[in-house]
Amino acid sequence: MTEPTRDVLETFENPYPQRNYVIETVQPEFTSLCPKTGHPDFGTLKIDYIADQVCYELKSLKLYLQQYRNHGAFYERVTNTILDDLVAVTQPRWMRIEAAFTARGGIRTTVIVEHGKRPE
Amino acid sequence: MTEPTRDVLETFENPYPQRNYVIETVQPEFTSLCPKTGHPDFGTLKIDYIADQVCYELKSLKLYLQQYRNHGAFYERVTNTILDDLVAVTQPRWMRIEAAFTARGGIRTTVIVEHGKRPE
Amino acid sequence: MTEPTRDVLETFENPYPQRNYVIETVQPEFTSLCPKTGHPDFGTLKIDYIADQVCYELKSLKLYLQQYRNHGAFYERVTNTILDDLVAVTQPRWMRIEAAFTARGGIRTTVIVEHGKRPE
Amino acid sequence: MTEPTRDVLETFENPYPQRNYVIETVQPEFTSLCPKTGHPDFGTLKIDYIADQVCYELKSLKLYLQQYRNHGAFYERVTNTILDDLVAVTQPRWMRIEAAFTARGGIRTTVIVEHGKRPE
Amino acid sequence: MTEPTRDVLETFENPYPQRNYVIETVQPEFTSLCPKTGHPDFGTLKIDYIADQVCYELKSLKLYLQQYRNHGAFYERVTNTILDDLVAVTQPRWMRIEAAFTARGGIRTTVIVEHGKRPE
Amino acid sequence: MTEPTRDVLETFENPYPQRNYVIETVQPEFTSLCPKTGHPDFGTLKIDYIADQVCYELKSLKLYLQQYRNHGAFYERVTNTILDDLVAVTQPRWMRIEAAFTARGGIRTTVIVEHGKRPE
Amino acid sequence: MTEPTRDVLETFENPYPQRNYVIETVQPEFTSLCPKTGHPDFGTLKIDYIADQVCYELKSLKLYLQQYRNHGAFYERVTNTILDDLVAVTQPRWMRIEAAFTARGGIRTTVIVEHGKRPE
Amino acid sequence: MTEPTRDVLETFENPYPQRNYVIETVQPEFTSLCPKTGHPDFGTLKIDYIADQVCYELKSLKLYLQQYRNHGAFYERVTNTILDDLVAVTQPRWMRIEAAFTARGGIRTTVIVEHGKRPE
Amino acid sequence: MTEPTRDVLETFENPYPQRNYVIETVQPEFTSLCPKTGHPDFGTLKIDYIADQVCYELKSLKLYLQQYRNHGAFYERVTNTILDDLVAVTQPRWMRIEAAFTARGGIRTTVIVEHGKRPE
Amino acid sequence: MTEPTRDVLETFENPYPQRNYVIETVQPEFTSLCPKTGHPDFGTLKIDYIADQVCYELKSLKLYLQQYRNHGAFYERVTNTILDDLVAVTQPRWMRIEAAFTARGGIRTTVIVEHGKRPE
Repeated sequence: MTEPTRDVLETFENPYPQRNYVIETVQPEFTSLCPKTGHPDFGTLKIDYIADQVCYELKSLKLYLQQYRNHGAFYERVTNTILDDLVAVTQPRWMRIEAAFTARGGIRTTVIVEHGKRPE
Repeated sequence: MTEPTRDVLETFENPYPQRNYVIETVQPEFTSLCPKTGHPDFGTLKIDYIADQVCYELKSLKLYLQQYRNHGAFYERVTNTILDDLVAVTQPRWMRIEAAFTARGGIRTTVIVEHGKRPE
Repeated sequence: MTEPTRDVLETFENPYPQRNYVIETVQPEFTSLCPKTGHPDFGTLKIDYIADQVCYELKSLKLYLQQYRNHGAFYERVTNTILDDLVAVTQPRWMRIEAAFTARGGIRTTVIVEHGKRPE
Repeated sequence: MTEPTRDVLETFENPYPQRNYVIETVQPEFTSLCPKTGHPDFGTLKIDYIADQVCYELKSLKLYLQQYRNHGAFYERVTNTILDDLVAVTQPRWMRIEAAFTARGGIRTTVIVEHGKRPE
Repeated sequence: MTEPTRDVLETFENPYPQRNYVIETVQPEFTSLCPKTGHPDFGTLKIDYIADQVCYELKSLKLYLQQYRNHGAFYERVTNTILDDLVAVTQPRWMRIEAAFTARGGIRTTVIVEHGKRPE
Repeated sequence: MTEPTRDVLETFENPYPQRNYVIETVQPEFTSLCPKTGHPDFGTLKIDYIADQVCYELKSLKLYLQQYRNHGAFYERVTNTILDDLVAVTQPRWMRIEAAFTARGGIRTTVIVEHGKRPE
Repeated sequence: MTEPTRDVLETFENPYPQRNYVIETVQPEFTSLCPKTGHPDFGTLKIDYIADQVCYELKSLKLYLQQYRNHGAFYERVTNTILDDLVAVTQPRWMRIEAAFTARGGIRTTVIVEHGKRPE
Repeated sequence: MTEPTRDVLETFENPYPQRNYVIETVQPEFTSLCPKTGHPDFGTLKIDYIADQVCYELKSLKLYLQQYRNHGAFYERVTNTILDDLVAVTQPRWMRIEAAFTARGGIRTTVIVEHGKRPE
Repeated sequence: MTEPTRDVLETFENPYPQRNYVIETVQPEFTSLCPKTGHPDFGTLKIDYIADQVCYELKSLKLYLQQYRNHGAFYERVTNTILDDLVAVTQPRWMRIEAAFTARGGIRTTVIVEHGKRPE
Repeated sequence: MTEPTRDVLETFENPYPQRNYVIETVQPEFTSLCPKTGHPDFGTLKIDYIADQVCYELKSLKLYLQQYRNHGAFYERVTNTILDDLVAVTQPRWMRIEAAFTARGGIRTTVIVEHGKRPE
């Protein structure tokens, strides 16, 4: 099984770079594998950002995230890694990811990471 | 197919220009076409603004937005364009549009644009 | 058909003028007439205020609002007028009205007006 | 504008014709035009059926329904027509369509049509 | 104040009299007056029927129901009267009205009336 | 403290005795006292019936039920008693009471009693 | 750890044995231990019955169910055992238990058991 | 009928006075009498506070609030009085009460009172 | 990629074969691949059954269903196959599966299959 | 019965100490015993924190919290104790616990404790 790679992410030119506006993207069907048990984890990713020169293309984002389907990853690490990848590719003015995982052993976990400071 | 035009937008005199008050308008039945696939997109537009000298007339707003029904437009562009048109016609003290599109490929997108700074 | 009048509004002495406290009143059954079509409009009025020397009496508020039942009024104007009437009669330290009207032509409108600045 | 045609509907062989099982399909993004005003109508179609020899293919169903986007049709007629088309193409053992349209003039309408008798 | 009259109700030809199908109509903005206190009552009317030769036209239904706006009527009577009027004008194979009124004195009331027996 | 009495219940003539129609009444603010601890119990009463010659008057029903405010009564008994009282006074063709009490010790209880058989 | 015993269940005389009425009891805070892992399980018990000569007393029911707190028991067995115990003590005309357990390993289970046939 | 008295309120020593932490208490079953009509009012009290040296004991709070069951009191006064009583007995660093009453005449009222300034 | 196999399913002895009782199992995290596009599908499986001599063991059911994670399968076929496998292994008196898949192209599909006739 | 001990809590190295990110953990199945009555209490714990060098391991958190199952503890004390234990073991940059207990005597209580100041 290969590692997820940011190479599949594609971008397009931001149509309004002169304006600080927010794009919110929600993927409610994220799934990866627990690195300890091998059982699948499920979660909802909410990505908010203010683009600078480029926006990520949605279909490529979907393919990027599907790479985690058979990848073992702890919640805390996978959320930080996805943020790093999206930041590297789009160089946004601001970005925030909230990853809410469904309950395991009755306990739910949400990890919230942020890059940069949201412009007012 | 002609381009949507702001010419159909009508206004009426703001009945209380001496007061900064907020008008919220929600159109839950916005639809346009995906410029890549030609398939219809659906979404909810929420427009909040503080009028200056004029307010937009609701029926003309409805007709203005219906122009996008057979128009191909990316989410990010269409939302910014509608803001530009409404600002050009009403010259508000402040305006904000939140456009929440239904899921495509399992992924939902919301675009939030703002004009001016909301008076306190 | 006579104009709605603030004369029906009654007040009682604020039992705790020494304290800045908030009174919220919700009338979910407000109805008036569209001045263009004559068809009824329906909405929910939410009135929040901090009284100074007097509070409005609830039954008289109900009767005051019932005057709009057969009165033609645009959303923006009626909301500002009700605020003016309630302010004139109660002279509050702060007041805010949020009037949410049900959909017409598929579009919902909410008008939010405020008098004074809310004390901290 | 051409009439919607059932010719775009495609089918595939029922994988379990030996069993009476139910397939429910929901299209929450149906839209057509009001034949009187020309304004768009929006609704949710719920189609339930028990296939006999063939099932309809989902993507072709989507394209079939998109034909109504710029087609003027009364609620009662369009729902019956869609049932006739789907029955003609799939010859099901039983089929039922529930079409719930969003409010117009404050009034919501749902049309429920059925073909054949549901096997126990 | 004149009595509500069924004369405003208009019909159109049932497009599929050969099929027993159900039309559901919901008017969530029904209002009349309490004959004892004169205060307005509010409620939601849900009308289900199977048409025979004609269907009622929705806009005329709306106008018919608006006649009760300034009409004093007990819940039990008004619901039965509306059923009688709609039956007289449309002669349906079956009709059922469920009128749910909002709380008065903390108590909610719903009246359910039916004409004929629903065909299987 | 006096016993609740059915004497306060008033009736009015059924406006449509020729039709078997259902009247549903919901009192969400019923309260009585626990006969063991003296603490208040709270519940929602839902009364459905088909009247014969008379209907109960709503304001008198409210006053009848308020008699239980300072009355100690087990759930099972009070529900049956209310049914007996309402049946005695209105002689309905059918009546059903569903009394849902809020949780005590973490356990919720609902008592459902019925008089006669519901006509088809 | 001792076995749960039905001896703690207390009853009182049915105040209306001449009427077949339903008593519904919901305990949303049931908890026992998984016999394989020793981890706690949580669930909601819904008990419906028609009493014959006696009803169970609610506080004793609560104590009876608390006995399972440190008791290891499979879902299927514990639900059947509780039904057997309640039937043995109250000899009802009919009883039904629906036990809905919270998710374990992402899978939720509900067990539904019934004693006797519900009288019409 | 005696006046409600704060004498029934009991306190216990704050187990963590070295920390500013918030205790939220919700009583959804508050009831008093309308001083004008004598009819019962129902509401939900939400009390938030940061204790200093003592906390109120919950069972005594329940008994304190039950004193209003047969007490006539306007919404604005009763809410301020309860705040005064709880402040007098517990001397908190901060306290806030939100009293939401159910609709009367179709209008809902909420009264919000606060003592001191919430520490950051 | 190997085919899913029923060999991983384990059973245990039905603890109450003398009683017809229902076991409901819900797996809200089912996922498979679309055989046409290779993209993942997501859905909720609801399995209801009345066991005869054996019940399926929940952990083995989870592992059985996880086999579909990287398996391409049409909705109609996969649902029927799962029913066949569970029936083959547990030989139940009755079984029913309802598989609700999330929207693709805006359209949601649910497949409902049943084995045997539910005992009364 | 032994006291709950923080010794069962395990940690792992924070994978991104260079970033202030938030981890939210929800345990909706917390249960302890009332120290006065011995009856079980139930509640939902929501723990939010920004880790410094280590994160707590979820399975050990679950086992730590299960220690309270047969432990008598007042709401205010148990919430503060859990915060102290988690802070001692993980030394976070910031931590907050919100413990919402289900109703007792009709009254719900939530205790909110915080350690440190949330970094911006």
